[in-house]
Amino acid sequence: MKNFADRLQAAINKTNNPTVMGLDPNLEYLPPALLENFTAICSDQIQAAGLALAEFNRRLLDAVTGIIPAVKLQAAFYEQYGLPGLKALQQSIEYARDKGFIVILDGKRNDIGSTAAAYARAYLGKTSYSEQLEQAAFAADALTVNAYLGSDGITPFLEQCARRGRGVFVLVKTSNPSAGELQDLVLQDGRHVYEAMADLVSGWGKELVGKNGFSSLGAVVGATWPKEAAGLRLRMPNTFILVPGYGVQGATAKDAVASFTKEGQGGIVNASRSLMLAFKKHGLEHDLFDLAARKEALAMRKDLQEALAGHKSAYA
Amino acid sequence: MKNFADRLQAAINKTNNPTVMGLDPNLEYLPPALLENFTAICSDQIQAAGLALAEFNRRLLDAVTGIIPAVKLQAAFYEQYGLPGLKALQQSIEYARDKGFIVILDGKRNDIGSTAAAYARAYLGKTSYSEQLEQAAFAADALTVNAYLGSDGITPFLEQCARRGRGVFVLVKTSNPSAGELQDLVLQDGRHVYEAMADLVSGWGKELVGKNGFSSLGAVVGATWPKEAAGLRLRMPNTFILVPGYGVQGATAKDAVASFTKEGQGGIVNASRSLMLAFKKHGLEHDLFDLAARKEALAMRKDLQEALAGHKSAYA
Repeated sequence: MKNFADRLQAAINKTNNPTVMGLDPNLEYLPPALLENFTAICSDQIQAAGLALAEFNRRLLDAVTGIIPAVKLQAAFYEQYGLPGLKALQQSIEYARDKGFIVILDGKRNDIGSTAAAYARAYLGKTSYSEQLEQAAFAADALTVNAYLGSDGITPFLEQCARRGRGVFVLVKTSNPSAGELQDLVLQDGRHVYEAMADLVSGWGKELVGKNGFSSLGAVVGATWPKEAAGLRLRMPNTFILVPGYGVQGATAKDAVASFTKEGQGGIVNASRSLMLAFKKHGLEHDLFDLAARKEALAMRKDLQEALAGHKSAYA
Repeated sequence: MKNFADRLQAAINKTNNPTVMGLDPNLEYLPPALLENFTAICSDQIQAAGLALAEFNRRLLDAVTGIIPAVKLQAAFYEQYGLPGLKALQQSIEYARDKGFIVILDGKRNDIGSTAAAYARAYLGKTSYSEQLEQAAFAADALTVNAYLGSDGITPFLEQCARRGRGVFVLVKTSNPSAGELQDLVLQDGRHVYEAMADLVSGWGKELVGKNGFSSLGAVVGATWPKEAAGLRLRMPNTFILVPGYGVQGATAKDAVASFTKEGQGGIVNASRSLMLAFKKHGLEHDLFDLAARKEALAMRKDLQEALAGHKSAYA
């Protein structure tokens, strides 16, 4: 199975677009007519909600096919809708992979030993039901993970990455305002806590470095901290970086590409609400949310391409 | 709605047993006949697995009713079995609550802003489907949470705790061997990272302190670190502590009660495999796993009561 980081970089290079579309839907993000279509044919509002979420995602995925290489599904938004929500998650993962997207599940899972192994099976591997039957529960290409518990919480995921060409992104420096309450504390040796986490991530990922020079054990670094991101890029030269915080959270394209190498590689920028709700910005009807997402995806690609050109020339 | 920490302490006092039973089942923990019963009546092995897991849990819950006050379900073990596994999780939560158990979902969830709010709704609150319909997705009493992201990742949970009498346990010092890789690093101010986390937890929980003097924002402190646990108990005098690591992970009852106050309050000790697989220790047939769990639960209660008597007398 091909190395995850190599697959991801190839998909980015093919589309010339280091963007991952976040699919984090609340029902209020859906055009009312879309939900009503399903409510009309279902006896159960909860079943209807799940079907509507899956359809919303399908239309977004169709709209950005060939433009955006990867998709990130935020587990919380599906879990809140119970079993129909989780069925929509499964269906969206399957639909996205069938259309050729790289699928990242944003679950920020974390645990140890046999429990971490169960999470790794659930999202990156397969579950055994008998000697005859193995099946994936949620067949993502990569999973976000929180490493507060240390290597016991990482090793089971790395095994799936190595065996099955899967990836993991570990939270290093998150995009939110309060990230620093723990992550920015300064250690006796002068490092910040987030830098200590970066050093752990860099070490854990060594065995999974692919032909492009990046490891399938990646990191999450918020675009809202461009100065810290530039330092982390140098500190973790072989780490693929997933960058949240662009758009609604306030970071610019220039901020976002601070996590990329001087060659403009090794990073991917997330946009969720700015794509799902682009109809507002573009002055379109809510029902045209997918067309608006496509327009916004093209604008974001241009924005990132320009920022990357500037980023590369600053090193030239 | 009554304060969660008060409800939990009352349930512990009523049973005279600070134990939480971990329900973290893999299919291989089930007696083969139990699984076969469901495989025989289901066309689908995956559906059968979910039904068998729920039945396994029901029998364990029946066996310890009145002896053990609380139950902790490890989300990973249900997620790995896909939708039927998650249905078993919902059914087990409901069955446990109907029988009067306090239900802790061990999901170690973590995120920020609208995503953290979605997790809080999913496990501690209700989801809105329309102006007419609100329903809980997974109706636990409390959820474990990882606070690497700071207060942005905690506030949405605290809101559900305050509104609905729910609880949260934040990872402070975990029970696993590699816990120290990040948690034991020493800060410039002399604190360990886990002590800085404890201070954050203590501060965040102040508004949720109940009549018993404990906050509904609790902490997780592994029984495998009794010296550190004793320090953390003094450092977080109003924090309820969930204690994993007893039994299979190697900690004794004496180690486990290091997290309790000098009055022997404010703590609850988890046991998972030592109860689910007690039939091995007690030399019973696998089919008698529930009887064995009951025997082991009684033995564990005695073990903890003796350790607590010693713990209290050391302070007297």
